[in-house]
Amino acid sequence: MNPSNTNILKQTIDSLSNLSQHPALFRLHCPSVKLPSVPALQEIIQLTRSLIFPGYYSSFSLNTETIAYHIGTSLERLSQLLAEQIEAGLCFECSTPQGCPGCHSSRRAKHYAEQVIAQLPTLRDLLATDVEAAYMGDPAAHSHAEVIACYPAIKALTCYRLAHELHLLGVPLIPRIITEMAHSETGIDIHPAAKIGPYFTIDHGTGVVIGATCIIGAHVKLYQGVTLGAKSFPLDEAGNPIKNIPRHPILEDGVIVYSNATILGRITIGKEAVIGANVWITHDIAAGSKVLFGGK
Amino acid sequence: MNPSNTNILKQTIDSLSNLSQHPALFRLHCPSVKLPSVPALQEIIQLTRSLIFPGYYSSFSLNTETIAYHIGTSLERLSQLLAEQIEAGLCFECSTPQGCPGCHSSRRAKHYAEQVIAQLPTLRDLLATDVEAAYMGDPAAHSHAEVIACYPAIKALTCYRLAHELHLLGVPLIPRIITEMAHSETGIDIHPAAKIGPYFTIDHGTGVVIGATCIIGAHVKLYQGVTLGAKSFPLDEAGNPIKNIPRHPILEDGVIVYSNATILGRITIGKEAVIGANVWITHDIAAGSKVLFGGK
Amino acid sequence: MNPSNTNILKQTIDSLSNLSQHPALFRLHCPSVKLPSVPALQEIIQLTRSLIFPGYYSSFSLNTETIAYHIGTSLERLSQLLAEQIEAGLCFECSTPQGCPGCHSSRRAKHYAEQVIAQLPTLRDLLATDVEAAYMGDPAAHSHAEVIACYPAIKALTCYRLAHELHLLGVPLIPRIITEMAHSETGIDIHPAAKIGPYFTIDHGTGVVIGATCIIGAHVKLYQGVTLGAKSFPLDEAGNPIKNIPRHPILEDGVIVYSNATILGRITIGKEAVIGANVWITHDIAAGSKVLFGGK
Amino acid sequence: MNPSNTNILKQTIDSLSNLSQHPALFRLHCPSVKLPSVPALQEIIQLTRSLIFPGYYSSFSLNTETIAYHIGTSLERLSQLLAEQIEAGLCFECSTPQGCPGCHSSRRAKHYAEQVIAQLPTLRDLLATDVEAAYMGDPAAHSHAEVIACYPAIKALTCYRLAHELHLLGVPLIPRIITEMAHSETGIDIHPAAKIGPYFTIDHGTGVVIGATCIIGAHVKLYQGVTLGAKSFPLDEAGNPIKNIPRHPILEDGVIVYSNATILGRITIGKEAVIGANVWITHDIAAGSKVLFGGK
Amino acid sequence: MNPSNTNILKQTIDSLSNLSQHPALFRLHCPSVKLPSVPALQEIIQLTRSLIFPGYYSSFSLNTETIAYHIGTSLERLSQLLAEQIEAGLCFECSTPQGCPGCHSSRRAKHYAEQVIAQLPTLRDLLATDVEAAYMGDPAAHSHAEVIACYPAIKALTCYRLAHELHLLGVPLIPRIITEMAHSETGIDIHPAAKIGPYFTIDHGTGVVIGATCIIGAHVKLYQGVTLGAKSFPLDEAGNPIKNIPRHPILEDGVIVYSNATILGRITIGKEAVIGANVWITHDIAAGSKVLFGGK
Amino acid sequence: MNPSNTNILKQTIDSLSNLSQHPALFRLHCPSVKLPSVPALQEIIQLTRSLIFPGYYSSFSLNTETIAYHIGTSLERLSQLLAEQIEAGLCFECSTPQGCPGCHSSRRAKHYAEQVIAQLPTLRDLLATDVEAAYMGDPAAHSHAEVIACYPAIKALTCYRLAHELHLLGVPLIPRIITEMAHSETGIDIHPAAKIGPYFTIDHGTGVVIGATCIIGAHVKLYQGVTLGAKSFPLDEAGNPIKNIPRHPILEDGVIVYSNATILGRITIGKEAVIGANVWITHDIAAGSKVLFGGK
Repeated sequence: MNPSNTNILKQTIDSLSNLSQHPALFRLHCPSVKLPSVPALQEIIQLTRSLIFPGYYSSFSLNTETIAYHIGTSLERLSQLLAEQIEAGLCFECSTPQGCPGCHSSRRAKHYAEQVIAQLPTLRDLLATDVEAAYMGDPAAHSHAEVIACYPAIKALTCYRLAHELHLLGVPLIPRIITEMAHSETGIDIHPAAKIGPYFTIDHGTGVVIGATCIIGAHVKLYQGVTLGAKSFPLDEAGNPIKNIPRHPILEDGVIVYSNATILGRITIGKEAVIGANVWITHDIAAGSKVLFGGK
Repeated sequence: MNPSNTNILKQTIDSLSNLSQHPALFRLHCPSVKLPSVPALQEIIQLTRSLIFPGYYSSFSLNTETIAYHIGTSLERLSQLLAEQIEAGLCFECSTPQGCPGCHSSRRAKHYAEQVIAQLPTLRDLLATDVEAAYMGDPAAHSHAEVIACYPAIKALTCYRLAHELHLLGVPLIPRIITEMAHSETGIDIHPAAKIGPYFTIDHGTGVVIGATCIIGAHVKLYQGVTLGAKSFPLDEAGNPIKNIPRHPILEDGVIVYSNATILGRITIGKEAVIGANVWITHDIAAGSKVLFGGK
Repeated sequence: MNPSNTNILKQTIDSLSNLSQHPALFRLHCPSVKLPSVPALQEIIQLTRSLIFPGYYSSFSLNTETIAYHIGTSLERLSQLLAEQIEAGLCFECSTPQGCPGCHSSRRAKHYAEQVIAQLPTLRDLLATDVEAAYMGDPAAHSHAEVIACYPAIKALTCYRLAHELHLLGVPLIPRIITEMAHSETGIDIHPAAKIGPYFTIDHGTGVVIGATCIIGAHVKLYQGVTLGAKSFPLDEAGNPIKNIPRHPILEDGVIVYSNATILGRITIGKEAVIGANVWITHDIAAGSKVLFGGK
Repeated sequence: MNPSNTNILKQTIDSLSNLSQHPALFRLHCPSVKLPSVPALQEIIQLTRSLIFPGYYSSFSLNTETIAYHIGTSLERLSQLLAEQIEAGLCFECSTPQGCPGCHSSRRAKHYAEQVIAQLPTLRDLLATDVEAAYMGDPAAHSHAEVIACYPAIKALTCYRLAHELHLLGVPLIPRIITEMAHSETGIDIHPAAKIGPYFTIDHGTGVVIGATCIIGAHVKLYQGVTLGAKSFPLDEAGNPIKNIPRHPILEDGVIVYSNATILGRITIGKEAVIGANVWITHDIAAGSKVLFGGK
Repeated sequence: MNPSNTNILKQTIDSLSNLSQHPALFRLHCPSVKLPSVPALQEIIQLTRSLIFPGYYSSFSLNTETIAYHIGTSLERLSQLLAEQIEAGLCFECSTPQGCPGCHSSRRAKHYAEQVIAQLPTLRDLLATDVEAAYMGDPAAHSHAEVIACYPAIKALTCYRLAHELHLLGVPLIPRIITEMAHSETGIDIHPAAKIGPYFTIDHGTGVVIGATCIIGAHVKLYQGVTLGAKSFPLDEAGNPIKNIPRHPILEDGVIVYSNATILGRITIGKEAVIGANVWITHDIAAGSKVLFGGK
Repeated sequence: MNPSNTNILKQTIDSLSNLSQHPALFRLHCPSVKLPSVPALQEIIQLTRSLIFPGYYSSFSLNTETIAYHIGTSLERLSQLLAEQIEAGLCFECSTPQGCPGCHSSRRAKHYAEQVIAQLPTLRDLLATDVEAAYMGDPAAHSHAEVIACYPAIKALTCYRLAHELHLLGVPLIPRIITEMAHSETGIDIHPAAKIGPYFTIDHGTGVVIGATCIIGAHVKLYQGVTLGAKSFPLDEAGNPIKNIPRHPILEDGVIVYSNATILGRITIGKEAVIGANVWITHDIAAGSKVLFGGK
């Protein structure tokens, strides 16, 4: 490296090491805290899939005599990784980066991890309904096996249903990273705060967006490119968007939304309504309707 | 781990180890059978790309004297991996999970792998036409090199054309996993059963869906977000969707479909017709037409 | 491997080793040149993110006393990787694959890498405005931290803004591979030649396409599925598309484009205009307009 | 690569690919057979150590409630790896490299693996006596923990005792590779055919050699550099060494041999005899003797 | 897996999971404690070597302008790893495996790690004398570079001198594991409690043993196979060896010991004495003597 | 990290970054030069073993039709790695660390690598004789296969014979690192400058030392712990050891040396002499003698 190059390098190091210019870009944190870890979260997703769908995403075989050993090992590992990442999430939003003397994050994180573990059988029951819905809804599916092994909807929903549990417990950041990892993998973006009933499916999936305050009933089916979004959002006096106002659609039981349709705002799509491809909806739709042209 | 935590862990292990509740979520299989392996399939895709486009996706250099050694080593490895994964696919859909005494899956798998290997030069001829079509169809492309190295369409089509060969041989599950891996990587979802002619290209690609019974001619070009889907599908007496009915569009030679257009049902888009962006088509389009507004 | 299998293997090896049939699929190159490396480019992206957003994408902690060591090590590594990959790009498009006696690619590559390094603080300033825009534009965002850690727009824009610097220096191929890697990760496809002002954001992102000759002002916001594309392109006398003609839209300051809208051709969307979801625009839009229905 | 270099390369490839010149250097084998795998054997050693000494060589914690899951998973993995490597050993010495129609190696290998698994608790009992002997014999040892975690004798004996079981079953090659791996790690070379009683220890260990027909009683202690070797060996009529003749020493209970002593031939070192450092012994030593000078 | 096999597996799992039979083989420990980690200790050794001998064991280049960044990053990493492993050592010997409410191991570990860090420049001064001694003592050495890059003595002494610092601080277990890792790599076994002066070298090295209570002066040189051991050791009333009694030799300044010599007991080898190969010494040797025959 | 810790860290960084105190510990080098790489040298050893003994150390099978592809790929890789490491060796001893304008190291390195490649068939012929000697000399060997797969002598001799070729070409440092890697793996230390004839074997091996100026004939056999060393060495006027003086033994054809014998100085052990275990020899031994007691 020649002198001029070294000079540029040193100037750039000085400039980038100056944290004071961009306080929003840095996150000072307790010296003892682990940062959220993408590889750890990927292992959490992989373990969850292998526990819910053993024989598909797992590397162990399904000998009925010995499966409990594998489930046990995987579950203890999942429990430990969840506790660490939940703690990382709790500390990431902590406002005392110098460390609080009476910090209880570690104990809270273990408690939350336990609660997620205890919910796994229920998550499995729900995901079994999603598999059934995908199989029934696609003539190209040859078997439940194909649905579980291939369909992006099952991958995205496994992440969402896990992230939703973490969201309900109040874990910051981590649920959102998990659903964004599924978004990157599948093109399906489901906010962890959305509420979604059983027998839900998304065909093909790429480009689907489901906003944070959506409420979706049972037996709902979406196609690729569907947006369930917000129409607009009010600002507070400081000009910041007001958080937590219901602003995304409600889809009642049995609704079907075809590809690239856009449904915006806190409106209700009534029971068993069918929304056609590429339409644009910003007002309530009555139960049982078929909507082929949207209005703006 | 404290006692209560241990307790929750053990209860969850018992519950998740109980395979009888959710038979569709489990796949019992012969003790001697390997499961389909995502890393092995990724290596298959990587090897296929490096054999078709040496110097782009391969790590070896293109010395004309020594290239045959690299092609030879890669091809023998590809042959072995294909045989293993094809066998995994055959056994995955086998109905006798306790193992059949006269199981011929291994021999059949080797035979199928050979046939795929023998088709690779033909696949290369086809993919060369796809590269040409992408280069000619995009003023932003500086060279064939850029098309091969960067364009998602080439990545997705290499997977599709390989998977289609496996599909034609009747290999279960594996072709679908391969095209879903390309779907995750590129946002382009092509069912391995679709039939696609030479000089095919997809610009940008994200959100494209090409259904299982599509038939696409030569010199066809799609843009991002295009759906070639089914309009509806009949159920059999048991309420299950009837498989294998032609239900997706036919696109004749020279058709162009602009971004986010949706074409549904077993209809025919005639030779050199042009379909505009965001339109919705459910009926035949005459050859040479330009369609800017869809009908519903 | 039995004899017939060996035979097929050898025939296929011979056929695939014959480079003369498909000259466009092969890239002969200097024996001393490294090929562009996807893992190296992934490390470049990872290092850039960790230098711009330390504490989010980096594995080191933000001790203010020691951060300069980490910045220094990462920057020197980035500098070296950039020089290697820039050289690979320069040589990839070189027309003398047998090697040129007076090749200056290595020296030019080091010089270009230095210039990119020197621009990093400026890139950080720009990306800080993008983070601010994303936070202000999304009521679901709880903190700047969440935006930086999760939002695909920040991931795609970090790649684009780095690739744009490389494009401005005239580096071939490498900028395009970088933006395609972000495309694969996020579903957002921004051509490195596009010009994009500060405070730019893309909500959700999947399916967004921004063409090579786009010019985007400050404070512009796009939603998922938006295309800023070309309407058509003239061919030269040989029938090849003419390169470098302005053919994509200009979006002035403050424009908002809702989901799945398609804007085509060298048209201008005036200051603070709002384009509704799913519309199709091919002509200029006046400043301040709200467009809910497109025309074709 | 220039032409002359390519030429040398090709000539060398031709020469090295010619297998007929050196039949002893090549091992033709069934196409369906796996070769012995050093990484698999390393994992076998690692698993055995973690099962015998959990909490020392394992990565899992010793929660008494959940340890059975870890033991179960590790043991099933060990069982599978053993079966594969035993089969590789059986086939390696097979004289019909073209494959035998009625080959039972796979079944035999599984049966042998089972028998090794069933012996593990007995191996643990034996190794517990070795740990006790090392702790009692070394004033520098602070705890049993230190012995288990650090002492090369324990590492080498775990390998030897496992390899001896494989040897007793008649498995070719594999036991020898395992003890040579321990030899490389510790400098202690114990032939898997040697017979060694309980409470055996080797202090420091480097340079110890224990030959194939040695018989060692209980409570024997060796120091570094000790050889228990053969004095000479008869040749058969063809001039080949005659196999399986007893030719190494017998050490009765309680013998101690100090560093660098050399004991050669089928002689007996009587009960509780002490052999001094650096001596050379080729004849029987009476029980209870102290030998400070060897004879030649 | 057939039923009988499964049965054997389950019985073995039950037997091995029963921790009560072999309390010495198990180490119950606090649930929150990390176990000592061989990979972490290997990284500690690698970092120490790269900090003491940059440009030999490090991967970074020796640009004098930027070296401080690399030293800084490596040192911070070393500091963190040392703290973790020291804590693992402290907890490994803790007698309250259920966890002590007021455990200060973590704080003590950080404090000890700091003290080791502060000693590194002094360790470097000492190791520079060892390099000088090896270079001066071997006509086969072409350069200091060759000594540093190749000689096992330098590898073993770097580990010993680091482990000795940890021993002086009272850290249990960890120093011993570090010197045993060097023993496995080089065949040189130096107990971390031994005291060794500057300008120490060991030629070739394999089979050298230096006991826990040895005291070695300056400018001492050993050859391969030398033992500095204990002659015998007294037992306490319970029959256990009494710890910490001086029982190994003292070698004064300038002593040379040739290959395979054995020196036993708390004796003194006087200044500049020379001990011949293969001799056996159990009594004091006067300064300046040359001993070619040992006595027993 | 608290302030005092940070302070210690920074002081230590400053001290260790100060390269001027210990010039011998640092190696300034051309900015463009790669350092010798232990992982690359390990791959060189692994490739050499797999080319000489295919089916033992290689992962590919011995199909006679396809083996040339594997040999070709491995050999081209070996050729490239050798060129890089030879260049690293040449530059490591270069006296102009700022880079020489007309540096020809890269060209010389490629030329040397070619010459090593061209010697590989001859190395194989030699190593075949070593395998034969080991098999004939050990009644415990069941097959040539066992010798090749397990015996440390074969591992060490493959490294030595490769390193000796590099030494003859005048490559600095690299041959020594290769033989030290074999030393660490096997406990056998052969200087690359030693001259060793065909049919050479070392039984067990640990602790064997063969000095730089040794000359060993055909059909020589050593046992573990044998030293072929220097007796003393003259110093030049500056007190440095004089290099390159013959100072190690000559062993004529058919000599056998039993375990732990020490042979020192430029003496000659005559044809078919036998040297007993643990003896010490410093003068010529007549052909055909049997020496059971050494003299000092």
